[in-house]
Amino acid sequence: MLTTWPPTLPVLQEGPKLFAQWVKEMTNEQLEIQVYGGGELVPALEAFDAVSQGTAEIGHGASYYWAGKIPAAQFFAAVPFGMNPQQMNAWIISGGGLELWEKVYAPFNLLPLPGGNTGIQMGGWFNKEINSVNDLKGLKMRIPGLGGKVISKAGGSAVLSAGSEIYTNLERGVIDATEWIGPYHDYMMGFYKVARYYYYPGWHEPGPNLEFFINKGAFSKLPSDLQQIVRNAAAKVHHWMLCEFESRNNLYLQKLIHEENVDLRPFPSEVLEQLRSYSEEVIGEIVRSDPQSRNVYDAYTSFRNQITPWADISEKIYYTKNL
Amino acid sequence: MLTTWPPTLPVLQEGPKLFAQWVKEMTNEQLEIQVYGGGELVPALEAFDAVSQGTAEIGHGASYYWAGKIPAAQFFAAVPFGMNPQQMNAWIISGGGLELWEKVYAPFNLLPLPGGNTGIQMGGWFNKEINSVNDLKGLKMRIPGLGGKVISKAGGSAVLSAGSEIYTNLERGVIDATEWIGPYHDYMMGFYKVARYYYYPGWHEPGPNLEFFINKGAFSKLPSDLQQIVRNAAAKVHHWMLCEFESRNNLYLQKLIHEENVDLRPFPSEVLEQLRSYSEEVIGEIVRSDPQSRNVYDAYTSFRNQITPWADISEKIYYTKNL
Repeated sequence: MLTTWPPTLPVLQEGPKLFAQWVKEMTNEQLEIQVYGGGELVPALEAFDAVSQGTAEIGHGASYYWAGKIPAAQFFAAVPFGMNPQQMNAWIISGGGLELWEKVYAPFNLLPLPGGNTGIQMGGWFNKEINSVNDLKGLKMRIPGLGGKVISKAGGSAVLSAGSEIYTNLERGVIDATEWIGPYHDYMMGFYKVARYYYYPGWHEPGPNLEFFINKGAFSKLPSDLQQIVRNAAAKVHHWMLCEFESRNNLYLQKLIHEENVDLRPFPSEVLEQLRSYSEEVIGEIVRSDPQSRNVYDAYTSFRNQITPWADISEKIYYTKNL
Repeated sequence: MLTTWPPTLPVLQEGPKLFAQWVKEMTNEQLEIQVYGGGELVPALEAFDAVSQGTAEIGHGASYYWAGKIPAAQFFAAVPFGMNPQQMNAWIISGGGLELWEKVYAPFNLLPLPGGNTGIQMGGWFNKEINSVNDLKGLKMRIPGLGGKVISKAGGSAVLSAGSEIYTNLERGVIDATEWIGPYHDYMMGFYKVARYYYYPGWHEPGPNLEFFINKGAFSKLPSDLQQIVRNAAAKVHHWMLCEFESRNNLYLQKLIHEENVDLRPFPSEVLEQLRSYSEEVIGEIVRSDPQSRNVYDAYTSFRNQITPWADISEKIYYTKNL
């Protein structure tokens, strides 16, 4: 098994390791899976190809990493201003999302399974206040995926760099800003040590859905009991990861604010509105040029529209009325 | 396996059936579990005792059903104005909740596992508008658990009746109001057919956490691979149920509003504030008279307080800024 994460990263790499442990326990050691972190056997972002070609049998990552090869894949991970974890889960598991995802990965000889969720991500660390979209112009920011395209639309330049390089790039001024995950993991990356940074809540990844991807040939060779065990262990990891992030993020948020004096502030509403409008442009360009993306995004959007009136009288009231 | 649900109830009874199916598939038919609905072998609300005594090996229900016997148990299901599903999951799975729950069930020879979540429940159906708490006085309402105690504080009378009796009780005027679950299941109960009812969003069960409870003697006799399989199948059911409810509630909400002309309206803020204050009184009385409830509720509250500042800059912003 190849993951896209640093070998010692908590939660994200722990999940695949727990998966292997549960599979081993459930099969009475019949099926033992060796888990390698990003870069240990192949570079992190080559995991998809390696599993597709059968070099490894299974991988763990996020489907927006493969957007260069499969633009439609990113809609199964995160969409700026898109669905949150609970809504993504409802779409993927009970709303037809997984069946579509299986079709998108089939030509690559891969079976996808949901494999975790980070919860709503933070908007990132900036070396200056963002008071209007003009403050994003010329800004060099490490931000992947659709969010990066939105920052480029706003006149910034989106830089892609692996997790291991971000700290040094910030320190040397190669980038002015970065996003990563949320308070728990951002704290461990030590960004607050580099300089005085402003820390903003997120908009670009409202609950990225992570993934297992399994070589179909390898999977089909498993007897059906082991196939079901693999599916069940993946489902348990999927669920466990969000619980881990949600239970710990605030502990680290408070450390950042009270021990490290990080300046947490909201984006002004006008900035969010402008970013939302750029997001719609970015997505519009993708779906106009790629029929498969159109198909997947239409399904995503129609599911979201379908469930929103219910969210408005349940979860939204929960948060707005402080239930 | 004994459940507390009607044998044909979608989602709630389907979950335990899927659990049995997945266990059977993962064990290559080594472990086959026969699932009985409420009343098929023993009355629904005797499932806990039956599994505790070893008459059956496993059960499925909601821990607030056992509040008469174990007051502390209800805090593992739902608390009025308490945590929502994502927060409950974080507490139970990654925040120490499950370990506490295991201690509470240990004297009954039972092992609890989270077993689903209905999502935020609706506040219920009323035969008149609720414009102030005075409108609750004298109201006979079918509402179980802590929510029922709150309605009693407000001057109403909380009636307990099994799901199968609610429709007839409404029709005959034995009760003036009822809650059940959410739009999907409320639609199937046909409450909208009885009379013109007002339908209100919820406050008393913001995401009840359901449960499997396993006879410890039976569980300890399983080899460790089968134990892990049982745990994994339960985890998959736990996750699946919320997805089912969240993906379908709105379809039925729209049918209720547009096909059945149900009058959906929010509770006035003053009513919610008053219900919140009665809820605090009700919980206060329980924890003052029962040290175990105090212990569990303190853990619940301190976890909730711990995560709230994070929720405020993630999920709350998601809903209030319409991300």
